Amino acid sequence: MARTKKGHSPAGAPAGAPLTPDEARALRAGCDRSLGGHGLRPPAEVLDELATLSSGELAADTYGVGGTVGILEAEVRRLLKKPAAVFMPSGTMIQQAALRIHSDQRVSRVVAFHPTCHLELHEDKAYQRLHGLIGLKVGSRQQLITLADLEKIHEPIAALLLELPQREIGGLLPQWADLVAQTTWAREHGVAVHMDGARLWECGPFYDRPLAEIAALFDTVYVSFYKGLGGTAGGMLLGEKEVIAEAREWRHRHGGTLYNLWPYAASDLAGLRLRLPRMGKYVRHARKVGAALSAIDGIEITPDPPQTPMMHIYLRTTDAAFNAGVRRLASEERLWTFGASQAADVPGYRKVELYCGDATLALSAAQVAEAVRALLPDAASA
Amino acid sequence: MARTKKGHSPAGAPAGAPLTPDEARALRAGCDRSLGGHGLRPPAEVLDELATLSSGELAADTYGVGGTVGILEAEVRRLLKKPAAVFMPSGTMIQQAALRIHSDQRVSRVVAFHPTCHLELHEDKAYQRLHGLIGLKVGSRQQLITLADLEKIHEPIAALLLELPQREIGGLLPQWADLVAQTTWAREHGVAVHMDGARLWECGPFYDRPLAEIAALFDTVYVSFYKGLGGTAGGMLLGEKEVIAEAREWRHRHGGTLYNLWPYAASDLAGLRLRLPRMGKYVRHARKVGAALSAIDGIEITPDPPQTPMMHIYLRTTDAAFNAGVRRLASEERLWTFGASQAADVPGYRKVELYCGDATLALSAAQVAEAVRALLPDAASA
Repeated sequence: MARTKKGHSPAGAPAGAPLTPDEARALRAGCDRSLGGHGLRPPAEVLDELATLSSGELAADTYGVGGTVGILEAEVRRLLKKPAAVFMPSGTMIQQAALRIHSDQRVSRVVAFHPTCHLELHEDKAYQRLHGLIGLKVGSRQQLITLADLEKIHEPIAALLLELPQREIGGLLPQWADLVAQTTWAREHGVAVHMDGARLWECGPFYDRPLAEIAALFDTVYVSFYKGLGGTAGGMLLGEKEVIAEAREWRHRHGGTLYNLWPYAASDLAGLRLRLPRMGKYVRHARKVGAALSAIDGIEITPDPPQTPMMHIYLRTTDAAFNAGVRRLASEERLWTFGASQAADVPGYRKVELYCGDATLALSAAQVAEAVRALLPDAASA
Repeated sequence: MARTKKGHSPAGAPAGAPLTPDEARALRAGCDRSLGGHGLRPPAEVLDELATLSSGELAADTYGVGGTVGILEAEVRRLLKKPAAVFMPSGTMIQQAALRIHSDQRVSRVVAFHPTCHLELHEDKAYQRLHGLIGLKVGSRQQLITLADLEKIHEPIAALLLELPQREIGGLLPQWADLVAQTTWAREHGVAVHMDGARLWECGPFYDRPLAEIAALFDTVYVSFYKGLGGTAGGMLLGEKEVIAEAREWRHRHGGTLYNLWPYAASDLAGLRLRLPRMGKYVRHARKVGAALSAIDGIEITPDPPQTPMMHIYLRTTDAAFNAGVRRLASEERLWTFGASQAADVPGYRKVELYCGDATLALSAAQVAEAVRALLPDAASA
């Protein structure tokens, strides 16, 4: 696909205009490389991946019982060494269920979390609308929660949610000693401690410990299968048997105990086995990419160096120059970069998130850096 | 599989004991015929059915937008002639969303429905636990709602839910004039009228009208794809644009706006196209099966004759004789009948539901009747 007119996208929009979802979809479909994640995964590719399961492992559940769902629950339960596990369609459902259960077991409706917690930013206050819970934001937006932040809480709280890694600030991880101190504080105060471990899989290399050791610090652990692991959707809650049994009730009430959950569980099981062993490789590549990026004038990354396969990139660029660069890379080099950038706090900067997955491994760190550099204004005028 | 010991199942349980889920699963997997529905649908068979879609129709959505999900929404919207449609993972989620929206637009938290409504019997009062709605049961358990029942309501209500057909009493349908009168009553009283049309597909032959004419009587319509149509899971809510836009918000809050919804939408689109045209055939077969069954002493069916592919069968038998018959048919004739029967109000009777789908079409009405007769006590001792 080539531009039909200088400075304009094929659809005729100004080259610097935000991409519409339809344009982004079309541009991306025309690319043969992607900067981040595992790339565009068309259904045919996902269905092919199911062939990595044995025929006995591809088996129908009935309303979430048995079949592939049971196999996946058992496999993750053993991996994280928790007494019980329940598969659900989404983390949004899982974490509301977990916090509601912790709250129903305690005197408080208050649940404490980081200001950038997924429940606070991305779920339209469902925890409040559906469960009547009260969110207490702990710590400051740009930093991880500290023990000092927790010690400032002077009301009974039901649960403390810690997100590993803290996605909205680039995938930052607390030091092991901090994690132990904070979870210990929760236990000493009768507060349930819940892990938003949507990206727990990514944390192994940083802590250099088995994932089960990290999970052991928490009462309940949520993991996701479609982000780093490349499944289609779905997550799991792990914890004590009684808690998980109650979570199954909430799954049902939310409308998540579907007639068949195997279509998700199957791609998730395949993704877990294929990509969990690659996490070390993803992290090593992210560090190389991070080093190449921070060497560029006008580019900052956080955390630097990356602690997981993820990083946030701040570019000294404009929305228009960024969008023009995205269009040019997609149409001229068939390289998909980002659908959009976000405004940063600092004027003159835009922000994007990069996850180094299978698609990124197919590019050298220099190639990734070069592509990001092309989203700076001088690149557009060059 | 043969019985290892007279009067005992292969697993060693007494022949009349209730089947455990594991035993039922194993027995069913060993059968080559099924009495009801579309039979056991292993994942491989479902995946094969996706090949009936064109390659352009098998396309990934992003959080429920575009791809196969968009195609399915457009197709059902056109079929039912409604302004807007949203696909969701389950009817449990859809109907809570619909009733919540109707309630938020009105002064009342009260929603009226039949005593056997799915929300009342099978969702653990989620409408109450999650949405703070109050359920008003209208009419009597064994009959359809009547206009006279509605006229006895003396409080403001937000919505009236009508289920077509009324599943828990055998799949009964109101006469067209009654349906018009009741939906008119709702409109005249400022009450939203919502259809639980999980089995709307099955109602065309009885009313002998396009489904869109039935849907036109309702403000919101819920349809399901995994029951009669044989998809893996999922349903759709249809109605005015603003209502459906708000329903998308509730889908998100419930945790149903999944990263990929195409795995369900794809099997649902295939199922819709394959099985909706077969509904007339299913109903005709159900009537033949119903006639053969009611001719047997000790068997009653309702409705008689069936109005949809569904009927409820009352058997003058014991739980033990029923279970022994199920085991014998499965192990000796490789014919799967029912996982369990329910107690009926009348002592000495057991109840089961039969849906005449693809699996039933493979059997003659006489074969079906013979199999059900084998669950009566005299069959066991014969």
